Amino acid sequence: MPSCHAVIFRATRNPADDGYAVMAARMETLARQQPGFLGLESFGDGPESLTVSYWSSLEAIAAWRAHPEHQEAQRLGRERWYAGYSLRVATVEAELHFPEPERG
Amino acid sequence: MPSCHAVIFRATRNPADDGYAVMAARMETLARQQPGFLGLESFGDGPESLTVSYWSSLEAIAAWRAHPEHQEAQRLGRERWYAGYSLRVATVEAELHFPEPERG
Repeated sequence: MPSCHAVIFRATRNPADDGYAVMAARMETLARQQPGFLGLESFGDGPESLTVSYWSSLEAIAAWRAHPEHQEAQRLGRERWYAGYSLRVATVEAELHFPEPERG
Repeated sequence: MPSCHAVIFRATRNPADDGYAVMAARMETLARQQPGFLGLESFGDGPESLTVSYWSSLEAIAAWRAHPEHQEAQRLGRERWYAGYSLRVATVEAELHFPEPERG
C-alpha cells in the first residue's frame, strides 16, 4: 500500500457564520490543489462537524498547514469561528474496502 | 502522548433498515465496553456515514474486530446493510486541541 496519512478534524462552531462558509469552501478548493492531497470528506451541517482528509506524506500535511491562506484561515478559526476543535494527524496502517476493488 | 489509534469507518447504507438501527446501537454500546476503547463519534444520518473510534492499541482494535457479536454484525453488514464501506486503521502521530486543555 502506498503511504497514506489522515487528518481528522473535529470541530464545534460558534453560531454566527461571519465569513465561515466562504472561507470553508475556499479552503476545500485550495486543499484539493495541494501536492500530496488524496481526498477529503466532511460530515455535519450544524455546529458539530467531522472532516477527514487524506495525504500522501506527513510533509504534504505540514506544507498545507503552513500555506499562507490556510494560516490566515486557521487564525480566523481560532479567533471567530470555532468554539473548539481537535486535530489529529494519523498514519494509515491498514485499510479494507467492501466490495473489494476490482484489480486491473 | 500515550499511544492512540483511530478506526475510520466510512459507509454507504442500503435503503432498508432491516435491523440495522438496533444492531448499530448494540455495537456502539459493546464497543464502549471493550478494553482499550477511548472514544467514538459518528456523523451522518442518511445513507452516508462517517464513524471514527479511538483505541489504545492495535491489539485492542483486532480484539474488538474478532468479538463474536461484532463478527456477526460485520457479516450482516456485508450481507444486508452496506452498499459499500471503507475501513482504515491508523496510528495517531500528533494531536492538538483548541482551546488547549488545562494542565492539572
